[in-house]
Amino acid sequence: MRDVGVLGIGQTPVGEHWDRSLRDLAVDAARAALEEAGLDRVDAVYVGNMASGILCGQENLATLVADAAGLLPAEAVKIEAACASGGAAVRAGFQVVAGGLHERVLVIGVEKMTDRLTDGVTAALATAADADYEAAHGASFVALNALLMRRYLDERRVGREAFAPFAILAHANAAKNPQALFRQPITAAQFAASPAVAEPITVLDSAGICDGAAALVLAPVEECRRRASGARRPAAVRIASSASVTDTLALGDRRDPLVWESVAGSARRALKDAGVSLKDLDFYEPHDAFTIVTALSLEACGFADRFAAVDLAREGRFDAGGDLPICTLGGLKGRGHPVGASGTYQFVEAVLQLRGTAGEAQVPGARVGMTQSVGGSGSVALTHVLEAV
Amino acid sequence: MRDVGVLGIGQTPVGEHWDRSLRDLAVDAARAALEEAGLDRVDAVYVGNMASGILCGQENLATLVADAAGLLPAEAVKIEAACASGGAAVRAGFQVVAGGLHERVLVIGVEKMTDRLTDGVTAALATAADADYEAAHGASFVALNALLMRRYLDERRVGREAFAPFAILAHANAAKNPQALFRQPITAAQFAASPAVAEPITVLDSAGICDGAAALVLAPVEECRRRASGARRPAAVRIASSASVTDTLALGDRRDPLVWESVAGSARRALKDAGVSLKDLDFYEPHDAFTIVTALSLEACGFADRFAAVDLAREGRFDAGGDLPICTLGGLKGRGHPVGASGTYQFVEAVLQLRGTAGEAQVPGARVGMTQSVGGSGSVALTHVLEAV
Repeated sequence: MRDVGVLGIGQTPVGEHWDRSLRDLAVDAARAALEEAGLDRVDAVYVGNMASGILCGQENLATLVADAAGLLPAEAVKIEAACASGGAAVRAGFQVVAGGLHERVLVIGVEKMTDRLTDGVTAALATAADADYEAAHGASFVALNALLMRRYLDERRVGREAFAPFAILAHANAAKNPQALFRQPITAAQFAASPAVAEPITVLDSAGICDGAAALVLAPVEECRRRASGARRPAAVRIASSASVTDTLALGDRRDPLVWESVAGSARRALKDAGVSLKDLDFYEPHDAFTIVTALSLEACGFADRFAAVDLAREGRFDAGGDLPICTLGGLKGRGHPVGASGTYQFVEAVLQLRGTAGEAQVPGARVGMTQSVGGSGSVALTHVLEAV
Repeated sequence: MRDVGVLGIGQTPVGEHWDRSLRDLAVDAARAALEEAGLDRVDAVYVGNMASGILCGQENLATLVADAAGLLPAEAVKIEAACASGGAAVRAGFQVVAGGLHERVLVIGVEKMTDRLTDGVTAALATAADADYEAAHGASFVALNALLMRRYLDERRVGREAFAPFAILAHANAAKNPQALFRQPITAAQFAASPAVAEPITVLDSAGICDGAAALVLAPVEECRRRASGARRPAAVRIASSASVTDTLALGDRRDPLVWESVAGSARRALKDAGVSLKDLDFYEPHDAFTIVTALSLEACGFADRFAAVDLAREGRFDAGGDLPICTLGGLKGRGHPVGASGTYQFVEAVLQLRGTAGEAQVPGARVGMTQSVGGSGSVALTHVLEAV
């Protein structure tokens, strides 16, 4: 097993790209990452994407990306793990480089969601749930998360305003990220007045529908270190660990739906493999598709006791400048959540932080960070620990 | 890099399984493979599938399979490479075991196509083509292959009856396979009278729409060899090589659409890595989704000179008992082509051959075989060489 590092990164702005196709977005991000890596070819292409078949009528997507980015005849596959597809693609690339099967690989997450009407996107996202036992009964993906939030509110005996800090911090951080979808800060009053999507989840609890692509070139860390050795180069970034854990697909099959075992298990393993503890982390990028997901993830990882994430959030512990900054460039809520791309956006952002090049959003002195992709309602989670070397 | 072998195999019959869901099929095949391997858990699950999102409203498919097969919390991802998804899933499993990242993995290909009307399936299959530059202009997947067949017929100056031997041999072999979809032999007269799907492709040139799942457990070959050492156990099977190569997504971008560079390149690399030549192969499982694909694949691999595959087929060279038996258990045409599962069916069948347990369809003394999955119209190809050890 070799150490794996990041040789280049690239991303498109997240937005409603009416003028850019699925292909255009992928090529933009791929070219940026390849240019930074100083490469014009790679051994393999791993494409994280959830729903290009349904949303764009395009499968065989990895071949399309390899073709459009000028990377033929490199091997290419699409990796699907619902909303965690981006993280799963990173892991696929990590594995082949770590195992010595390839030297340099392109990992790209891409999703084009805006070419469909909203109800089409809702149906596409529902495919992350159990088609036979959840979606068939009319549960949309937001509805399933609404059940979780309702239960959290009831068990914790608190109002939905307890979740406001997560949305407020995400927007505040996104305002410092030129690539983010929502660059305007929001207030507690705006959060309180936000219209319901599926009670108790409102618009401001939810990551928006959008388009985007983010890409990484991975290579043995020694090569990354050599490239980073010039005084003007950014620090090299090593993938210290990678872990993937599954849980039941349907929420109803869980012992306790508010305990996300996949998140807990993958975080535990990633921290152990990286040889770091929670306290060593300078930042954490949770899969904050909904504010309830942020809270459950913080609690599952052990950053907060059960039902305490909302308290710590109120105290500002997760804000920029707090004990554990989260969603440092806006997270899924603020930067945007082009589903299959979100895991790679998190990764690109973590690299920016660890290089010290995150601009206004920089976490001072960041050396170690953790990113997390969650698919379905906690049915699969991928956790990566990254460190500057 | 470790040598990788096959510890267990399982398959469902291929058919129109109105009483079995996507989940049921996957579990049936997974359980059979796990039982043969003597395992009740694995480190990871790789699911080859092309279009469960469109056809069944189900993404997050690998988590579903891990869950339904009782394999939680094993890591699980879906691998999509259009019609080559099954072969790509095998390669993903091969890579992680070869690279030392996992010890035992389940690879499964599954596709459930019959829950949709035929036009829905046609649209789903068209996502293997270029959505913007091919499908958007009305080209279905069979129509693209019809363009290839038309050009082959014109350049070769031959009638479509030249392709009859491929369909006839596939059906003849399928008749010896209890798991096959089409177990009835066909005649040249039936082939000649077969109705057109997209001129000049007829029903009997085409693999049928169907359901099925096939699974393998992969592990280091030493473990497979130990398990196979009892006198009554079948021979162990080693994956001697694995190669994946891409070509342009759209047919119109090829220098010569009748030369399938992806097939040629992946076969060349797989043979080289395995240290065998074409002559060493005891059988070959091409991706015979249409008879034209069989011919182009035979020619791309070098089994036949350009435009000569149809001549060799007429001479019976690819029949059971010929120089190079192909589609030994019926191929995609006879056994059936549940698209994302076909690559794993080929693999399961190759293992049966190399163990000497292929029943009536047994290739006498088979020691080395080659399987091939092709996605799109030759836009991606995966080739594996397997050998009895």
